[in-house]
Amino acid sequence: MTDTIEDSLGNSPYDVIIVGAGPAALSCAVFTARAQLKTLLFGFPEKSMLHNAQQVGNYLATDGINGPDWLEKALEQIQHYGAQLLREEVVHATAAKEGGFEIKTADNRRYRCKTLVIATGLAMKHAGIAREQELLGKGVHTCVACDGWPYKNKKVVVIGHASHAAEEAIELLAFTRDITILSNGKEFDISSSLKAELEKNGVQMRPDRVAALEGTQRLEKILLKDGSVLTVDGVFMAIGSSSALSFAQKLALDTKDTFLVVDRDGKTSMEGVYAAGACTGGNTQIAKSVGDGCNAAIAIIRKLKGLNSYSDLT
Amino acid sequence: MTDTIEDSLGNSPYDVIIVGAGPAALSCAVFTARAQLKTLLFGFPEKSMLHNAQQVGNYLATDGINGPDWLEKALEQIQHYGAQLLREEVVHATAAKEGGFEIKTADNRRYRCKTLVIATGLAMKHAGIAREQELLGKGVHTCVACDGWPYKNKKVVVIGHASHAAEEAIELLAFTRDITILSNGKEFDISSSLKAELEKNGVQMRPDRVAALEGTQRLEKILLKDGSVLTVDGVFMAIGSSSALSFAQKLALDTKDTFLVVDRDGKTSMEGVYAAGACTGGNTQIAKSVGDGCNAAIAIIRKLKGLNSYSDLT
Repeated sequence: MTDTIEDSLGNSPYDVIIVGAGPAALSCAVFTARAQLKTLLFGFPEKSMLHNAQQVGNYLATDGINGPDWLEKALEQIQHYGAQLLREEVVHATAAKEGGFEIKTADNRRYRCKTLVIATGLAMKHAGIAREQELLGKGVHTCVACDGWPYKNKKVVVIGHASHAAEEAIELLAFTRDITILSNGKEFDISSSLKAELEKNGVQMRPDRVAALEGTQRLEKILLKDGSVLTVDGVFMAIGSSSALSFAQKLALDTKDTFLVVDRDGKTSMEGVYAAGACTGGNTQIAKSVGDGCNAAIAIIRKLKGLNSYSDLT
Repeated sequence: MTDTIEDSLGNSPYDVIIVGAGPAALSCAVFTARAQLKTLLFGFPEKSMLHNAQQVGNYLATDGINGPDWLEKALEQIQHYGAQLLREEVVHATAAKEGGFEIKTADNRRYRCKTLVIATGLAMKHAGIAREQELLGKGVHTCVACDGWPYKNKKVVVIGHASHAAEEAIELLAFTRDITILSNGKEFDISSSLKAELEKNGVQMRPDRVAALEGTQRLEKILLKDGSVLTVDGVFMAIGSSSALSFAQKLALDTKDTFLVVDRDGKTSMEGVYAAGACTGGNTQIAKSVGDGCNAAIAIIRKLKGLNSYSDLT
């Protein structure tokens, strides 16, 4: 099935694309794949919180297993039923003109799907930079698609080191050419395809560490750890990989606190977009995430197959 | 711990009593037991719908296991962490005067608990007797605690063959002495303790099969398969074992259709009473029930231990 994996834009869309590769994502995939829905996951199981577990004692029927073995069994299982996993970061998601959704990966490939499941785990953590929280919304932002427009021809900085930060910078190119990415002391981990696009457009990439954000009414400058000062109009925080919140902002999904709002079937506020696991709030247990993934999957199967009372009673 | 099992009324109450022994109940138990809460389950794992599964393919990390093996592993697991299972039917539940709840088993033992979890699986099925549904509420009822009072000194029939039917008949003794239990062709399966109480109080037990219920405005008589007719004032349906709905009625919990209404934490409308799994609606997958049980358990642990952000990350 390499042809459908390579770039699905020329092909029929996937029935289900799942962003994430932890327990919620994998549980969703096992159900949709068993229902013969064309299912593609994007993520890194080894980055799941579960991967650090020495001994999982609270998930029924696998007492004592360790996190990596649990994930390995789950991966084998979803592949056994026909789901596919790509170890790629998803950096963008939009509603497609022709219906359904289109996602873009860090290596600049695009994939279409009829239904989209966000199962990216706990929401993005703050960078922990002094005055970051206080200036949020006052020159400090977390989403270019939402808050990029006032920065036409302005000087902006993106703080982050991975493909998510690169994608935010590329989106800013629609408004301005004066863009710097600060990795805040981390090594840059940006796909070669996105890196080439940054370089082509003159986006600066600097490894400087940030000491503090400064400003009276709103952000005015960034203090760097080496004592130097950057005068800026706006800062976009893009720490780590794309979080559920960044997808929520791109797709205008309802959120509460830092979580996606879902109903009992995992439906978000947008038809066809589902969410499951820690990014929807509640506790962060494997069992809960597995249940969430199941609920979203059953709802998707019922929707796509028009089966109102579908169940998978093995 | 035999002394605490025998009859807890003289002892300190259990932290958690779980009515049920399927995936939702067992998942709840593994969390509460691991949190060192004194946990007691009542039920028959071998009666769980899952017990019939040849091959469970949709529960992550145990691909291909059969239902009985899954349940056996789960039982070993909850016992490993200190939860106890009694293969007894719970026939009654009430809020205790001294706080918490008291449950009564078919063998007439009583147990107290601080929190109660209802995880009894799918709601009671209808008996499938002609005109049963049509006359519901018009002389045909499903709960003595709710609808028994108009039958003072009247002639009533309970339809059912197990301890649940016996318990309903015993509750009717508060209103009338003219009580017959019809097993509707099934062999009676009532605990010796309840049977003795029925006999002592002159409750008749007949194995006759019911052909139809009859009446114009409301129930007037029961037609038996042998052609005979019983003139009655009221009929109480008590098929199978106590369902979540019968507990809901006894405790006055909110229901919707035939399901208990719960929030995301598995809380019912009564403080201290939780529900999980198929009796709360939604799909009937193992994964979903296991997630529900987890959610109720985490809420109970947080409540009893006063830990607002408890999690069990192994």
